[in-house]
Amino acid sequence: MKTYLDCVPCFVRQTLEASRMVTDDSTIHEKILRAVIDELNIMSFQNPPPLMAQKIHKIVREMTNNKDPYKKIKKRFNKFILKLYPDLKKKVEESVNPFETAVCLAIAGNIIDFGVTSTVDEAKVNETIDYCLAEKIAANYLTEFEGAVSKAENIYYLGDNAGEIVFDKLLIEQLLPKKVTFVVKGGPIINDVTFEDAEDVGITDLAKVVDNGSDAPGTILDLCSDEFKIKLNEADLIISKGQANYESLSDQSKNIIFLLKAKCPVITRDIGCNLGDMVLKIKKQ
Amino acid sequence: MKTYLDCVPCFVRQTLEASRMVTDDSTIHEKILRAVIDELNIMSFQNPPPLMAQKIHKIVREMTNNKDPYKKIKKRFNKFILKLYPDLKKKVEESVNPFETAVCLAIAGNIIDFGVTSTVDEAKVNETIDYCLAEKIAANYLTEFEGAVSKAENIYYLGDNAGEIVFDKLLIEQLLPKKVTFVVKGGPIINDVTFEDAEDVGITDLAKVVDNGSDAPGTILDLCSDEFKIKLNEADLIISKGQANYESLSDQSKNIIFLLKAKCPVITRDIGCNLGDMVLKIKKQ
Repeated sequence: MKTYLDCVPCFVRQTLEASRMVTDDSTIHEKILRAVIDELNIMSFQNPPPLMAQKIHKIVREMTNNKDPYKKIKKRFNKFILKLYPDLKKKVEESVNPFETAVCLAIAGNIIDFGVTSTVDEAKVNETIDYCLAEKIAANYLTEFEGAVSKAENIYYLGDNAGEIVFDKLLIEQLLPKKVTFVVKGGPIINDVTFEDAEDVGITDLAKVVDNGSDAPGTILDLCSDEFKIKLNEADLIISKGQANYESLSDQSKNIIFLLKAKCPVITRDIGCNLGDMVLKIKKQ
Repeated sequence: MKTYLDCVPCFVRQTLEASRMVTDDSTIHEKILRAVIDELNIMSFQNPPPLMAQKIHKIVREMTNNKDPYKKIKKRFNKFILKLYPDLKKKVEESVNPFETAVCLAIAGNIIDFGVTSTVDEAKVNETIDYCLAEKIAANYLTEFEGAVSKAENIYYLGDNAGEIVFDKLLIEQLLPKKVTFVVKGGPIINDVTFEDAEDVGITDLAKVVDNGSDAPGTILDLCSDEFKIKLNEADLIISKGQANYESLSDQSKNIIFLLKAKCPVITRDIGCNLGDMVLKIKKQ
Protein backbone atom coordinates (compact mmCIF):
# COMPACT_ATOMS: atom_id res chain seq x y z
CA MET A 1 0.00 0.00 0.00
CA LYS A 2 1.33 3.41 -0.89
CA THR A 3 1.37 6.34 1.51
CA TYR A 4 -1.73 8.52 1.37
CA LEU A 5 -1.62 12.28 1.87
CA ASP A 6 -3.74 11.73 4.99
CA CYS A 7 -0.84 9.79 6.53
CA VAL A 8 1.11 13.05 6.85
CA PRO A 9 -0.88 14.63 9.74
CA CYS A 10 -0.68 11.23 11.42
CA PHE A 11 3.14 11.12 11.01
CA VAL A 12 3.36 14.51 12.73
CA ARG A 13 1.07 13.41 15.57
CA GLN A 14 3.12 10.20 15.97
CA THR A 15 6.31 12.27 16.16
CA LEU A 16 4.93 14.31 19.05
CA GLU A 17 3.54 11.28 20.87
CA ALA A 18 6.81 9.37 20.58
CA SER A 19 8.89 12.39 21.68
CA ARG A 20 6.66 12.94 24.72
CA MET A 21 7.03 9.29 25.64
CA VAL A 22 10.73 9.96 26.28
CA THR A 23 11.03 13.51 27.59
CA ASP A 24 8.96 16.44 28.84
CA ASP A 25 11.42 18.94 27.32
CA SER A 26 9.43 20.83 24.69
CA THR A 27 12.64 22.24 23.14
CA ILE A 28 13.63 18.69 22.24
CA HIS A 29 10.08 17.98 20.99
CA GLU A 30 10.36 20.96 18.64
CA LYS A 31 13.81 19.93 17.39
CA ILE A 32 12.53 16.42 16.65
CA LEU A 33 9.43 17.80 14.95
CA ARG A 34 11.56 20.03 12.71
CA ALA A 35 13.83 17.10 11.80
CA VAL A 36 10.77 15.04 10.86
CA ILE A 37 9.36 17.91 8.78
CA ASP A 38 12.68 17.89 6.89
CA GLU A 39 12.12 14.19 6.13
CA LEU A 40 8.50 14.77 5.10
CA ASN A 41 9.79 17.31 2.62
CA ILE A 42 11.64 14.64 0.68
CA MET A 43 9.49 11.56 1.28
CA SER A 44 7.94 9.66 -1.59
CA PHE A 45 4.27 8.74 -1.44
CA GLN A 46 5.04 5.63 -3.48
CA ASN A 47 6.54 3.94 -0.41
CA PRO A 48 4.36 2.27 2.23
CA PRO A 49 3.69 4.36 5.38
CA PRO A 50 5.85 2.18 7.67
CA LEU A 51 8.98 3.40 5.84
CA MET A 52 8.35 6.96 6.98
CA ALA A 53 7.39 5.71 10.45
CA GLN A 54 10.77 3.94 10.64
CA LYS A 55 12.53 7.23 9.83
CA ILE A 56 10.48 9.16 12.39
CA HIS A 57 11.21 6.76 15.23
CA LYS A 58 14.90 6.59 14.31
CA ILE A 59 15.01 10.40 14.63
CA VAL A 60 13.23 10.21 18.01
CA ARG A 61 15.63 7.53 19.31
CA GLU A 62 18.73 9.36 18.11
CA MET A 63 17.71 12.84 19.26
CA THR A 64 16.63 11.64 22.70
CA ASN A 65 19.48 9.14 23.02
CA ASN A 66 16.92 6.50 23.99
CA LYS A 67 17.17 3.11 22.29
CA ASP A 68 13.63 2.00 23.10
CA PRO A 69 11.16 4.78 24.03
CA TYR A 70 8.23 2.35 24.28
CA LYS A 71 10.00 -0.24 26.47
CA LYS A 72 8.07 0.55 29.64
CA ILE A 73 4.67 0.65 27.99
CA LYS A 74 5.40 -2.61 26.13
CA LYS A 75 6.22 -4.38 29.40
CA ARG A 76 3.07 -2.93 30.96
CA PHE A 77 0.81 -4.23 28.21
CA ASN A 78 2.44 -7.68 28.08
CA LYS A 79 1.88 -7.98 31.81
CA PHE A 80 -1.70 -6.71 31.64
CA ILE A 81 -2.78 -9.08 28.86
CA LEU A 82 -0.95 -12.02 30.47
CA LYS A 83 -3.21 -11.45 33.47
CA LEU A 84 -6.25 -11.76 31.18
CA TYR A 85 -4.78 -14.80 29.41
CA PRO A 86 -6.27 -17.59 31.61
CA ASP A 87 -9.78 -16.16 31.21
CA LEU A 88 -9.35 -15.60 27.49
CA LYS A 89 -8.03 -19.16 27.04
CA LYS A 90 -11.09 -20.46 28.88
CA LYS A 91 -13.33 -18.40 26.57
CA VAL A 92 -11.63 -19.97 23.54
CA GLU A 93 -11.79 -23.53 24.86
CA GLU A 94 -15.39 -23.30 26.01
CA SER A 95 -16.70 -21.62 22.86
CA VAL A 96 -18.66 -23.42 20.14
CA ASN A 97 -15.94 -22.65 17.63
CA PRO A 98 -12.56 -22.21 19.38
CA PHE A 99 -10.78 -21.30 16.12
CA GLU A 100 -13.25 -18.49 15.41
CA THR A 101 -13.03 -17.18 18.99
CA ALA A 102 -9.23 -17.20 18.84
CA VAL A 103 -9.29 -15.31 15.52
CA CYS A 104 -11.67 -12.69 16.97
CA LEU A 105 -9.45 -12.25 20.02
CA ALA A 106 -6.30 -12.01 17.90
CA ILE A 107 -7.98 -9.20 15.98
CA ALA A 108 -9.17 -7.55 19.23
CA GLY A 109 -5.56 -7.49 20.44
CA ASN A 110 -4.62 -5.32 17.49
CA ILE A 111 -6.19 -2.35 19.28
CA ILE A 112 -2.91 -2.06 21.24
CA ASP A 113 -1.19 -0.13 18.45
CA PHE A 114 0.80 2.90 19.58
CA GLY A 115 1.59 3.80 15.98
CA VAL A 116 -2.04 4.78 15.53
CA THR A 117 -2.70 6.30 18.94
CA SER A 118 -1.05 6.37 22.34
CA THR A 119 -4.38 6.72 24.14
CA VAL A 120 -5.09 2.98 24.36
CA ASP A 121 -5.63 1.90 27.94
CA GLU A 122 -6.87 -1.13 29.82
CA ALA A 123 -10.53 -0.06 29.57
CA LYS A 124 -10.26 0.31 25.79
CA VAL A 125 -8.73 -3.17 25.51
CA ASN A 126 -11.56 -4.73 27.56
CA GLU A 127 -14.18 -2.88 25.51
CA THR A 128 -12.55 -4.10 22.28
CA ILE A 129 -12.48 -7.71 23.50
CA ASP A 130 -16.23 -7.54 24.20
CA TYR A 131 -16.88 -5.90 20.81
CA CYS A 132 -14.87 -8.47 18.85
CA LEU A 133 -16.41 -11.44 20.66
CA ALA A 134 -19.90 -10.10 19.98
CA GLU A 135 -19.21 -9.37 16.28
CA LYS A 136 -19.06 -12.08 13.65
CA ILE A 137 -16.50 -12.71 10.96
CA ALA A 138 -18.03 -13.69 7.59
CA ALA A 139 -18.35 -17.51 7.77
CA ASN A 140 -16.94 -18.09 4.28
CA TYR A 141 -13.74 -16.16 5.09
CA LEU A 142 -13.34 -18.10 8.30
CA THR A 143 -13.84 -21.43 6.51
CA GLU A 144 -11.31 -20.43 3.87
CA PHE A 145 -8.82 -19.45 6.59
CA GLU A 146 -9.34 -22.80 8.35
CA GLY A 147 -8.92 -24.61 5.04
CA ALA A 148 -5.66 -22.77 4.32
CA VAL A 149 -4.36 -23.70 7.77
CA SER A 150 -5.26 -27.36 7.37
CA LYS A 151 -3.46 -27.52 4.01
CA ALA A 152 -0.37 -25.65 5.26
CA GLU A 153 2.77 -27.34 6.54
CA ASN A 154 4.84 -24.32 7.31
CA ILE A 155 3.03 -21.28 8.71
CA TYR A 156 4.72 -17.93 9.26
CA TYR A 157 2.91 -15.70 11.76
CA LEU A 158 4.01 -12.06 11.50
CA GLY A 159 3.65 -10.59 14.98
CA ASP A 160 2.70 -7.00 15.58
CA ASN A 161 2.62 -5.37 19.00
CA ALA A 162 3.41 -5.99 22.65
CA GLY A 163 0.30 -6.96 24.61
CA GLU A 164 -1.31 -8.02 21.32
CA ILE A 165 1.21 -10.87 21.22
CA VAL A 166 -0.63 -12.60 24.11
CA PHE A 167 -3.76 -12.70 21.96
CA ASP A 168 -1.63 -14.15 19.16
CA LYS A 169 -0.59 -16.92 21.54
CA LEU A 170 -4.23 -17.99 21.77
CA LEU A 171 -4.49 -18.26 18.00
CA ILE A 172 -1.15 -20.05 17.65
CA GLU A 173 -2.42 -22.64 20.14
CA GLN A 174 -5.25 -23.31 17.69
CA LEU A 175 -2.81 -23.69 14.79
CA LEU A 176 -0.74 -26.39 16.52
CA PRO A 177 0.46 -29.07 15.88
CA LYS A 178 1.27 -27.32 12.57
CA LYS A 179 4.80 -25.95 12.36
CA VAL A 180 4.46 -22.27 13.24
CA THR A 181 7.24 -19.67 13.01
CA PHE A 182 6.55 -16.44 14.85
CA VAL A 183 8.22 -13.35 13.40
CA VAL A 184 9.39 -10.40 15.50
CA LYS A 185 11.19 -7.17 14.59
CA GLY A 186 14.97 -6.99 14.36
CA GLY A 187 15.10 -3.97 16.69
CA PRO A 188 12.86 -1.77 18.83
CA ILE A 189 10.29 0.27 16.89
CA ILE A 190 7.17 1.79 18.48
CA ASN A 191 5.49 -0.96 20.55
CA ASP A 192 6.23 -3.69 18.00
CA VAL A 193 7.29 -7.07 19.31
CA THR A 194 10.93 -8.09 19.52
CA PHE A 195 12.42 -11.40 20.70
CA GLU A 196 12.20 -10.27 24.32
CA ASP A 197 8.41 -9.90 24.10
CA ALA A 198 8.03 -13.37 22.58
CA GLU A 199 10.03 -14.74 25.51
CA ASP A 200 8.13 -12.66 28.08
CA VAL A 201 4.75 -14.06 27.06
CA GLY A 202 5.92 -17.61 26.37
CA ILE A 203 5.49 -17.68 22.59
CA THR A 204 9.00 -19.20 22.48
CA ASP A 205 7.53 -22.34 24.08
CA LEU A 206 4.99 -22.79 21.29
CA ALA A 207 6.69 -21.69 18.10
CA LYS A 208 10.06 -21.02 16.61
CA VAL A 209 10.71 -17.29 16.91
CA VAL A 210 12.75 -15.46 14.26
CA ASP A 211 13.41 -11.80 13.68
CA ASN A 212 12.98 -10.16 10.28
CA GLY A 213 16.26 -8.28 10.49
CA SER A 214 14.63 -4.87 10.28
CA ASP A 215 13.52 -2.18 12.70
CA ALA A 216 10.78 -0.81 10.44
CA PRO A 217 7.16 -1.26 11.51
CA GLY A 218 5.39 -3.90 9.42
CA THR A 219 7.38 -6.08 7.05
CA ILE A 220 9.15 -4.00 4.40
CA LEU A 221 10.82 -6.84 2.53
CA ASP A 222 13.51 -4.59 0.99
CA LEU A 223 14.70 -3.81 4.51
CA CYS A 224 14.48 -7.36 5.88
CA SER A 225 17.50 -9.68 6.09
CA ASP A 226 18.19 -12.05 3.18
CA GLU A 227 18.03 -14.94 5.62
CA PHE A 228 14.49 -13.97 6.67
CA LYS A 229 13.32 -13.39 3.10
CA ILE A 230 14.52 -16.86 2.04
CA LYS A 231 12.67 -18.46 4.98
CA LEU A 232 9.51 -16.48 4.36
CA ASN A 233 9.50 -17.61 0.73
CA GLU A 234 9.38 -21.21 1.94
CA ALA A 235 6.22 -20.59 3.99
CA ASP A 236 3.06 -21.94 2.42
CA LEU A 237 0.85 -19.68 4.54
CA ILE A 238 1.55 -16.28 6.09
CA ILE A 239 -0.64 -14.89 8.84
CA SER A 240 -0.07 -11.15 9.03
CA LYS A 241 -1.14 -9.17 12.07
CA GLY A 242 -1.97 -5.48 12.18
CA GLN A 243 -2.05 -2.40 10.01
CA ALA A 244 1.66 -1.89 9.35
CA ASN A 245 2.09 -5.48 8.12
CA TYR A 246 -0.89 -4.94 5.83
CA GLU A 247 0.48 -1.61 4.59
CA SER A 248 3.84 -3.15 3.73
CA LEU A 249 2.65 -6.50 2.30
CA SER A 250 -0.71 -5.82 0.64
CA ASP A 251 0.97 -5.53 -2.79
CA GLN A 252 3.11 -8.69 -2.46
CA SER A 253 2.21 -11.77 -4.43
CA LYS A 254 2.07 -14.29 -1.58
CA ASN A 255 -0.58 -16.35 0.25
CA ILE A 256 -1.39 -14.08 3.16
CA ILE A 257 -4.20 -13.93 5.71
CA PHE A 258 -4.36 -10.39 7.06
CA LEU A 259 -5.88 -10.02 10.53
CA LEU A 260 -6.35 -6.52 11.87
CA LYS A 261 -8.63 -4.01 13.48
CA ALA A 262 -9.20 -1.10 11.08
CA LYS A 263 -8.14 1.94 13.07
CA CYS A 264 -7.59 4.73 10.57
CA PRO A 265 -9.47 6.16 7.57
CA VAL A 266 -6.56 5.49 5.21
CA ILE A 267 -6.70 1.75 5.95
CA THR A 268 -10.50 1.60 5.71
CA ARG A 269 -10.35 3.32 2.31
CA ASP A 270 -7.69 0.92 1.03
CA ILE A 271 -9.43 -2.21 2.32
CA GLY A 272 -12.99 -1.01 1.73
CA CYS A 273 -14.27 -1.41 5.28
CA ASN A 274 -15.47 0.79 8.14
CA LEU A 275 -13.52 2.31 10.99
CA GLY A 276 -13.39 -0.16 13.88
CA ASP A 277 -14.16 -3.20 11.70
CA MET A 278 -12.53 -6.56 12.37
CA VAL A 279 -10.71 -7.43 9.17
CA LEU A 280 -9.88 -10.93 7.92
CA LYS A 281 -8.59 -10.39 4.40
CA ILE A 282 -7.34 -13.27 2.28
CA LYS A 283 -4.72 -12.61 -0.35
CA LYS A 284 -3.75 -15.33 -2.81
CA GLN A 285 -0.54 -15.62 -4.75
CA MET B 1 -1.50 32.77 22.20
CA LYS B 2 1.59 31.15 20.74
CA THR B 3 1.48 28.18 18.39
CA TYR B 4 1.67 24.81 20.10
CA LEU B 5 3.46 21.82 18.58
CA ASP B 6 0.07 20.10 18.45
CA CYS B 7 -1.10 22.75 15.98
CA VAL B 8 1.23 21.25 13.34
CA PRO B 9 -0.74 18.04 12.61
CA CYS B 10 -3.83 20.25 12.47
CA PHE B 11 -2.18 22.60 9.93
CA VAL B 12 -1.46 19.60 7.71
CA ARG B 13 -5.03 18.30 8.03
CA GLN B 14 -6.37 21.78 7.25
CA THR B 15 -4.18 21.95 4.14
CA LEU B 16 -5.66 18.71 2.81
CA GLU B 17 -9.23 19.70 3.65
CA ALA B 18 -8.88 23.10 1.99
CA SER B 19 -7.22 21.62 -1.11
CA ARG B 20 -9.97 19.02 -1.47
CA MET B 21 -12.58 21.74 -1.18
CA VAL B 22 -11.29 23.12 -4.52
CA THR B 23 -10.17 20.16 -6.59
CA ASP B 24 -10.21 16.37 -6.72
CA ASP B 25 -6.78 16.29 -8.35
CA SER B 26 -4.48 14.53 -5.89
CA THR B 27 -1.38 15.72 -7.77
CA ILE B 28 -2.34 19.28 -6.87
CA HIS B 29 -3.13 18.22 -3.28
CA GLU B 30 0.39 16.78 -3.00
CA LYS B 31 1.99 19.92 -4.48
CA ILE B 32 0.10 22.11 -2.02
CA LEU B 33 0.99 19.81 0.87
CA ARG B 34 4.69 19.98 -0.04
CA ALA B 35 4.54 23.78 -0.27
CA VAL B 36 2.95 23.92 3.17
CA ILE B 37 5.58 21.56 4.59
CA ASP B 38 8.20 24.02 3.28
CA GLU B 39 6.46 26.76 5.28
CA LEU B 40 6.21 24.59 8.39
CA ASN B 41 9.95 24.12 8.15
CA ILE B 42 10.57 27.81 8.77
CA MET B 43 7.59 28.78 10.92
CA SER B 44 8.07 30.27 14.38
CA PHE B 45 6.09 28.86 17.28
CA GLN B 46 6.13 32.31 18.87
CA ASN B 47 3.46 33.51 16.44
CA PRO B 48 -0.25 32.77 16.96
CA PRO B 49 -1.64 29.82 14.94
CA PRO B 50 -3.77 32.01 12.62
CA LEU B 51 -0.57 33.40 11.04
CA MET B 52 0.37 29.95 9.75
CA ALA B 53 -3.25 29.32 8.76
CA GLN B 54 -3.14 32.51 6.67
CA LYS B 55 -0.04 31.22 4.85
CA ILE B 56 -1.60 27.80 4.25
CA HIS B 57 -4.77 29.19 2.73
CA LYS B 58 -2.83 31.69 0.61
CA ILE B 59 -0.88 28.72 -0.82
CA VAL B 60 -4.14 26.84 -1.47
CA ARG B 61 -5.71 29.84 -3.21
CA GLU B 62 -2.65 30.56 -5.34
CA MET B 63 -1.91 26.96 -6.33
CA THR B 64 -5.53 26.23 -7.25
CA ASN B 65 -6.12 29.64 -8.78
CA ASN B 66 -9.29 29.94 -6.69
CA LYS B 67 -9.84 33.19 -4.83
CA ASP B 68 -12.38 31.82 -2.34
CA PRO B 69 -12.42 28.01 -1.93
CA TYR B 70 -15.04 28.16 0.82
CA LYS B 71 -17.48 30.46 -1.01
CA LYS B 72 -20.08 27.79 -1.73
CA ILE B 73 -20.06 26.33 1.76
CA LYS B 74 -20.24 29.80 3.30
CA LYS B 75 -23.36 30.62 1.27
CA ARG B 76 -24.87 27.25 2.22
CA PHE B 77 -24.41 27.86 5.95
CA ASN B 78 -25.64 31.45 5.85
CA LYS B 79 -28.78 30.21 4.10
CA PHE B 80 -29.25 27.30 6.49
CA ILE B 81 -28.93 29.37 9.66
CA LEU B 82 -31.10 32.16 8.22
CA LYS B 83 -33.84 29.54 7.93
CA LEU B 84 -33.44 28.78 11.64
CA TYR B 85 -33.30 32.48 12.54
CA PRO B 86 -37.07 33.12 13.16
CA ASP B 87 -37.26 30.17 15.56
CA LEU B 88 -34.03 31.13 17.31
CA LYS B 89 -35.22 34.74 17.67
CA LYS B 90 -38.44 33.45 19.23
CA LYS B 91 -36.40 31.34 21.64
CA VAL B 92 -34.42 34.43 22.68
CA GLU B 93 -37.47 36.66 23.07
CA GLU B 94 -39.52 34.12 24.99
CA SER B 95 -36.75 33.07 27.33
CA VAL B 96 -36.47 34.17 30.97
CA ASN B 97 -33.16 35.87 30.22
CA PRO B 98 -32.98 36.90 26.54
CA PHE B 99 -29.40 38.20 26.89
CA GLU B 100 -28.20 34.86 28.30
CA THR B 101 -30.01 32.89 25.60
CA ALA B 102 -28.52 35.08 22.88
CA VAL B 103 -25.02 34.60 24.36
CA CYS B 104 -25.49 30.83 24.46
CA LEU B 105 -26.68 30.79 20.87
CA ALA B 106 -23.81 33.02 19.73
CA ILE B 107 -21.43 30.49 21.27
CA ALA B 108 -23.34 27.57 19.71
CA GLY B 109 -22.87 29.18 16.29
CA ASN B 110 -19.11 28.93 16.72
CA ILE B 111 -19.35 25.22 15.92
CA ILE B 112 -19.41 26.23 12.22
CA ASP B 113 -15.63 26.56 12.06
CA PHE B 114 -14.02 25.00 9.00
CA GLY B 115 -10.57 25.85 10.31
CA VAL B 116 -11.03 23.20 12.97
CA THR B 117 -12.92 20.62 10.95
CA SER B 118 -14.79 20.45 7.68
CA THR B 119 -17.14 17.76 8.95
CA VAL B 120 -19.68 20.17 10.46
CA ASP B 121 -23.12 19.59 9.04
CA GLU B 122 -26.69 20.66 9.73
CA ALA B 123 -27.25 17.86 12.27
CA LYS B 124 -24.15 18.89 14.23
CA VAL B 125 -25.36 22.50 14.31
CA ASN B 126 -28.79 21.49 15.64
CA GLU B 127 -27.21 19.23 18.26
CA THR B 128 -24.90 22.08 19.35
CA ILE B 129 -27.81 24.53 19.66
CA ASP B 130 -29.61 22.07 21.97
CA TYR B 131 -26.44 21.49 23.99
CA CYS B 132 -25.69 25.19 24.43
CA LEU B 133 -29.26 26.06 25.38
CA ALA B 134 -29.31 23.29 27.99
CA GLU B 135 -25.93 24.25 29.48
CA LYS B 136 -25.45 27.22 31.75
CA ILE B 137 -22.85 29.98 31.67
CA ALA B 138 -21.51 30.89 35.11
CA ALA B 139 -23.92 33.59 36.39
CA ASN B 140 -21.14 35.90 37.62
CA TYR B 141 -19.45 35.95 34.18
CA LEU B 142 -22.76 36.71 32.53
CA THR B 143 -23.51 39.53 34.97
CA GLU B 144 -20.05 40.97 34.38
CA PHE B 145 -20.57 40.78 30.60
CA GLU B 146 -23.95 42.55 30.94
CA GLY B 147 -22.36 45.18 33.17
CA ALA B 148 -19.59 45.80 30.63
CA VAL B 149 -22.19 46.19 27.87
CA SER B 150 -24.27 48.64 29.90
CA LYS B 151 -21.21 50.78 30.61
CA ALA B 152 -19.93 50.70 27.02
CA GLU B 153 -20.66 53.36 24.44
CA ASN B 154 -18.75 51.97 21.54
CA ILE B 155 -18.77 48.18 21.12
CA TYR B 156 -16.67 46.37 18.54
CA TYR B 157 -17.95 42.90 17.70
CA LEU B 158 -15.28 40.78 15.96
CA GLY B 159 -17.16 38.39 13.69
CA ASP B 160 -15.94 34.91 12.95
CA ASN B 161 -17.57 32.57 10.47
CA ALA B 162 -20.33 32.37 7.88
CA GLY B 163 -23.46 30.77 9.29
CA GLU B 164 -22.24 31.69 12.77
CA ILE B 165 -22.84 35.32 11.82
CA VAL B 166 -26.61 34.74 11.97
CA PHE B 167 -26.25 33.71 15.62
CA ASP B 168 -24.20 36.89 16.15
CA LYS B 169 -27.13 38.87 14.78
CA LEU B 170 -29.27 37.58 17.66
CA LEU B 171 -26.72 38.80 20.20
CA ILE B 172 -26.24 42.15 18.47
CA GLU B 173 -30.00 42.69 18.68
CA GLN B 174 -29.61 42.36 22.46
CA LEU B 175 -26.79 44.91 22.50
CA LEU B 176 -28.81 47.62 20.73
CA PRO B 177 -29.38 50.55 21.05
CA LYS B 178 -25.66 50.65 21.90
CA LYS B 179 -23.42 51.65 19.02
CA VAL B 180 -22.14 48.35 17.62
CA THR B 181 -19.50 47.98 14.94
CA PHE B 182 -19.29 44.53 13.38
CA VAL B 183 -15.85 43.54 12.08
CA VAL B 184 -15.32 41.29 9.07
CA LYS B 185 -12.16 40.09 7.33
CA GLY B 186 -10.49 42.14 4.60
CA GLY B 187 -10.47 39.19 2.19
CA PRO B 188 -11.64 35.57 1.91
CA ILE B 189 -10.01 33.16 4.37
CA ILE B 190 -11.48 29.76 5.27
CA ASN B 191 -15.18 30.31 6.09
CA ASP B 192 -14.55 33.60 7.90
CA VAL B 193 -17.03 36.40 7.34
CA THR B 194 -16.40 39.15 4.82
CA PHE B 195 -18.58 42.17 4.01
CA GLU B 196 -20.71 40.06 1.65
CA ASP B 197 -21.73 37.73 4.49
CA ALA B 198 -22.70 40.65 6.72
CA GLU B 199 -24.91 41.93 3.87
CA ASP B 200 -26.34 38.47 3.12
CA VAL B 201 -27.61 37.97 6.65
CA GLY B 202 -28.69 41.58 7.28
CA ILE B 203 -26.08 42.55 9.88
CA THR B 204 -25.56 45.70 7.81
CA ASP B 205 -29.07 46.82 8.87
CA LEU B 206 -28.18 46.58 12.57
CA ALA B 207 -24.59 47.66 12.88
CA LYS B 208 -21.85 49.52 11.10
CA VAL B 209 -19.74 46.90 9.32
CA VAL B 210 -16.00 47.46 8.84
CA ASP B 211 -13.26 45.17 7.61
CA ASN B 212 -9.99 44.73 9.48
CA GLY B 213 -7.86 45.06 6.36
CA SER B 214 -6.41 41.56 6.65
CA ASP B 215 -7.10 38.14 5.23
CA ALA B 216 -5.68 36.24 8.20
CA PRO B 217 -8.06 34.22 10.37
CA GLY B 218 -8.66 35.90 13.74
CA THR B 219 -7.39 39.42 14.33
CA ILE B 220 -3.61 39.61 13.99
CA LEU B 221 -3.19 43.32 14.73
CA ASP B 222 0.19 43.56 12.99
CA LEU B 223 -1.52 42.55 9.76
CA CYS B 224 -4.61 44.76 10.17
CA SER B 225 -4.96 48.15 8.50
CA ASP B 226 -3.87 51.24 10.47
CA GLU B 227 -7.37 52.64 9.98
CA PHE B 228 -8.90 49.59 11.68
CA LYS B 229 -6.37 49.56 14.52
CA ILE B 230 -7.08 53.23 15.32
CA LYS B 231 -10.83 52.54 15.39
CA LEU B 232 -10.45 49.42 17.53
CA ASN B 233 -8.41 51.40 20.04
CA GLU B 234 -11.36 53.74 20.49
CA ALA B 235 -13.69 50.86 21.40
CA ASP B 236 -14.48 50.60 25.08
CA LEU B 237 -15.60 47.00 24.76
CA ILE B 238 -14.56 44.31 22.29
CA ILE B 239 -16.64 41.16 21.85
CA SER B 240 -14.47 38.55 20.17
CA LYS B 241 -16.02 35.51 18.56
CA GLY B 242 -14.31 32.17 18.00
CA GLN B 243 -11.00 30.40 18.44
CA ALA B 244 -8.86 32.30 15.93
CA ASN B 245 -9.81 35.68 17.43
CA TYR B 246 -8.91 34.29 20.86
CA GLU B 247 -5.62 32.87 19.58
CA SER B 248 -4.61 36.19 18.07
CA LEU B 249 -5.88 38.54 20.82
CA SER B 250 -5.50 36.64 24.10
CA ASP B 251 -2.20 38.41 24.83
CA GLN B 252 -3.44 41.95 24.00
CA SER B 253 -4.04 44.41 26.77
CA LYS B 254 -7.61 45.41 25.93
CA ASN B 255 -11.09 44.94 27.40
CA ILE B 256 -12.28 41.86 25.56
CA ILE B 257 -15.10 39.40 26.07
CA PHE B 258 -14.17 36.16 24.31
CA LEU B 259 -17.09 33.97 23.25
CA LEU B 260 -16.29 30.59 21.74
CA LYS B 261 -16.91 26.90 21.70
CA ALA B 262 -13.70 25.06 22.70
CA LYS B 263 -13.08 22.72 19.81
CA CYS B 264 -9.44 21.64 20.07
CA PRO B 265 -7.13 20.39 22.84
CA VAL B 266 -4.70 23.26 22.31
CA ILE B 267 -7.39 25.83 23.08
CA THR B 268 -8.72 23.90 26.08
CA ARG B 269 -5.18 23.70 27.50
CA ASP B 270 -4.60 27.42 27.02
CA ILE B 271 -7.96 28.47 28.47
CA GLY B 272 -8.18 25.75 31.10
CA CYS B 273 -11.49 24.25 30.05
CA ASN B 274 -12.81 21.01 28.55
CA LEU B 275 -13.33 20.07 24.93
CA GLY B 276 -16.80 21.13 23.83
CA ASP B 277 -17.20 23.72 26.64
CA MET B 278 -18.97 27.01 26.03
CA VAL B 279 -16.42 29.69 26.86
CA LEU B 280 -17.17 33.23 28.05
CA LYS B 281 -13.78 34.61 29.04
CA ILE B 282 -13.38 38.16 30.26
CA LYS B 283 -10.08 39.96 29.70
CA LYS B 284 -9.45 43.32 31.27
CA GLN B 285 -7.01 45.97 30.14
